[in-house]
Amino acid sequence: MANAVSPLAVPLPELPPLAGVRLSATAAGIRYQGRTDVVMMEVAPGSTVAGVFTTNKCPGAPVDWCRASLKGGKARMVVVNAGNANVFTGKAGRDACSATASAAAKLADCSAKQVFVASTGVIGEVLPHDKLVAALPTLHETLGDNGWEAAARGIMTTDTFPKAATRTATIGDTGVRITGIAKGSGMIAPDMATMLCFVFTDAKIPADALQAMLSKGVEGSFNCTTVDSDTSTSDTVLLIATGQAKHPRIPSADDNGARKRMLADFRKALDEVLLDLALQVVRDGEGAQKLVRIDVTGASNPRSAKKIAMAVANSPLVKTAVAGEDANWGRIVMAVGKSGEPANRDTLSVGVGGVWMAREGAVVPGYDEAPVVAHMKGKEVEIAIDLGLGRGKATVWTCDLTHAYIDINGSYRS
Amino acid sequence: MANAVSPLAVPLPELPPLAGVRLSATAAGIRYQGRTDVVMMEVAPGSTVAGVFTTNKCPGAPVDWCRASLKGGKARMVVVNAGNANVFTGKAGRDACSATASAAAKLADCSAKQVFVASTGVIGEVLPHDKLVAALPTLHETLGDNGWEAAARGIMTTDTFPKAATRTATIGDTGVRITGIAKGSGMIAPDMATMLCFVFTDAKIPADALQAMLSKGVEGSFNCTTVDSDTSTSDTVLLIATGQAKHPRIPSADDNGARKRMLADFRKALDEVLLDLALQVVRDGEGAQKLVRIDVTGASNPRSAKKIAMAVANSPLVKTAVAGEDANWGRIVMAVGKSGEPANRDTLSVGVGGVWMAREGAVVPGYDEAPVVAHMKGKEVEIAIDLGLGRGKATVWTCDLTHAYIDINGSYRS
Repeated sequence: MANAVSPLAVPLPELPPLAGVRLSATAAGIRYQGRTDVVMMEVAPGSTVAGVFTTNKCPGAPVDWCRASLKGGKARMVVVNAGNANVFTGKAGRDACSATASAAAKLADCSAKQVFVASTGVIGEVLPHDKLVAALPTLHETLGDNGWEAAARGIMTTDTFPKAATRTATIGDTGVRITGIAKGSGMIAPDMATMLCFVFTDAKIPADALQAMLSKGVEGSFNCTTVDSDTSTSDTVLLIATGQAKHPRIPSADDNGARKRMLADFRKALDEVLLDLALQVVRDGEGAQKLVRIDVTGASNPRSAKKIAMAVANSPLVKTAVAGEDANWGRIVMAVGKSGEPANRDTLSVGVGGVWMAREGAVVPGYDEAPVVAHMKGKEVEIAIDLGLGRGKATVWTCDLTHAYIDINGSYRS
Repeated sequence: MANAVSPLAVPLPELPPLAGVRLSATAAGIRYQGRTDVVMMEVAPGSTVAGVFTTNKCPGAPVDWCRASLKGGKARMVVVNAGNANVFTGKAGRDACSATASAAAKLADCSAKQVFVASTGVIGEVLPHDKLVAALPTLHETLGDNGWEAAARGIMTTDTFPKAATRTATIGDTGVRITGIAKGSGMIAPDMATMLCFVFTDAKIPADALQAMLSKGVEGSFNCTTVDSDTSTSDTVLLIATGQAKHPRIPSADDNGARKRMLADFRKALDEVLLDLALQVVRDGEGAQKLVRIDVTGASNPRSAKKIAMAVANSPLVKTAVAGEDANWGRIVMAVGKSGEPANRDTLSVGVGGVWMAREGAVVPGYDEAPVVAHMKGKEVEIAIDLGLGRGKATVWTCDLTHAYIDINGSYRS
């Protein structure tokens, strides 16, 4: 629990109030002692919501609850606890979600379906939702505009630093803001899972437009990162628009061209917030000492490029080589070849830190090793792979695989 | 290099002569000093051969050479070196294969296409085939019936123990023998790759029948094992039949039923040899302290069962939990769910060491922890997963993920 802060940590940015969002955190003693572990995020009436959830076929009860609630497209409240994931808990897990949502709905004077719940922590233990419900009145009374840092800290499990990002954008001539918080670092302590992200904006955007932008944005950010290839049972990203900003009305989906033009700047800022948060999660990957960026070009198509990049990012041999500061291009070749995607040894090039080391089926004769060695000693490592086959490209991010990963995940659970 | 012998090692079995096979090993100084590193295996004229090779799209030059030679269906000689994989070496790599095969063919008085070559070790360095060719006459002069152990040791890279298996079978009323040697332990030292297996029999079996049995046998043995999910660029399994045993003639492929009946006992013994060797490789998995068997039942179909079993076997979180002797069924549920295969949380059961711990979407109330804890402390761990969906089943084997894996693979290459 008292893990040292990741060497890749970034400072929390300044997080100004966002019209229509109030936040609070308190200590409910669900698992941790002496720290906040429950967070409430209340949004203005009429707020629209979009969500993206884990693809794991054994999702937690809160994921099921959110998926069902999302159909309404409206949100008033998000309640999050840390320390217990409420996953694989059967009927008790479903009951915990509905009891929490009902109690929160009474405080917000809304339908339970407008309350979204999220939990991360131990899998397979019943969530003591009485403690959670008992904490709700205090949370409601202490809601405030400046609760962002408290919220970012209250959702942490074994994250080593709080994660947030904020950007501004214009819609028409009106400035709007997008602010998000996230938690996650793989499954850093035994049984602890996993990634949560909550993004808010004061823009007034219909739920369907919000969902389209979020789905696309997650594809290019969170879905392009991996710490250990283990997809959690709790992953949740919610995007909520409070509609408090006074910008021109977003055109309906019928006029898709106009809608796209008006939201272009917003979409760009949203993508930046999502990528910023996703990379903060990788920076807090369990045991991470280095952030690794993998650029694949020249693949048959973009899907193939991403699969190849992910095969490299998830290769334990590549990840241990990075930990050892070894620019081991042979292992990168191996990982490209095992991906199952089209690859031709004789058109393949591999580079590290901007230096091509292997090209056209053999090592580049006399390539300059000095800059490569220096690059590998840094905190951020860049791997380039060109397949020489087509125009497909993709970028993914991961971290190295170190002894700390084994320490964190190989200790006894109880 | 001086790694301690795996705690999961098994002793080398007694390996009697096999009619039509002579073996030798010598020290050619290709990379290692003070140990044998080149092996010759000569088989009787008329021997048939079958082969299965890596699916990696960036295979080594020797794999390309063997694939091409296999079309002839005949073998007279196998030459193997350790320490240099001859992978990603361009034209120099192809030249090394053909020079070695041509020189060996002269000694055996056969076509170069009847010489099979295999190399494992460093990727991306040109194989000094002059040293290899210079060693061939000595190897040829010292060929003998009792060279099995020398051959099993000579093909090792950073394996911690030599690997061999032998069985007898009957064809008609005639006894035949099947003996195989293998090497591999993942990629235990930086850049070292990977899995080689050579199996011989004195039976007289047409190449097409040999190939069919080998392909099926590898599917149920080597292809059901994983150490670190990283598919090497050199994996090679050869099966050679010398035809020296005096059993009734194997019927042609036209009479497939009769052929199958006559080879039933042989096939069973071959499968046992292949599985025995495959498990020896897992027992020598880098850093392995425990051998893990994963039985999946109740899946939609056998392919789905295997994919689920492999997702569990390759999950770093499951593997570190096993290393920590933690029967962490929550991580097993996660890995099942992330496999992408049909799974239903509410019909899923997970057991360890014969005790069902999770069933129907929740923990089994009051299950007996004592036998589970005791089981996890042993050297062999059994995980059972029942999907409750259909009749598909599969079994795979892996090892745990320990600090030694990081030590072995995270050190500097040079």
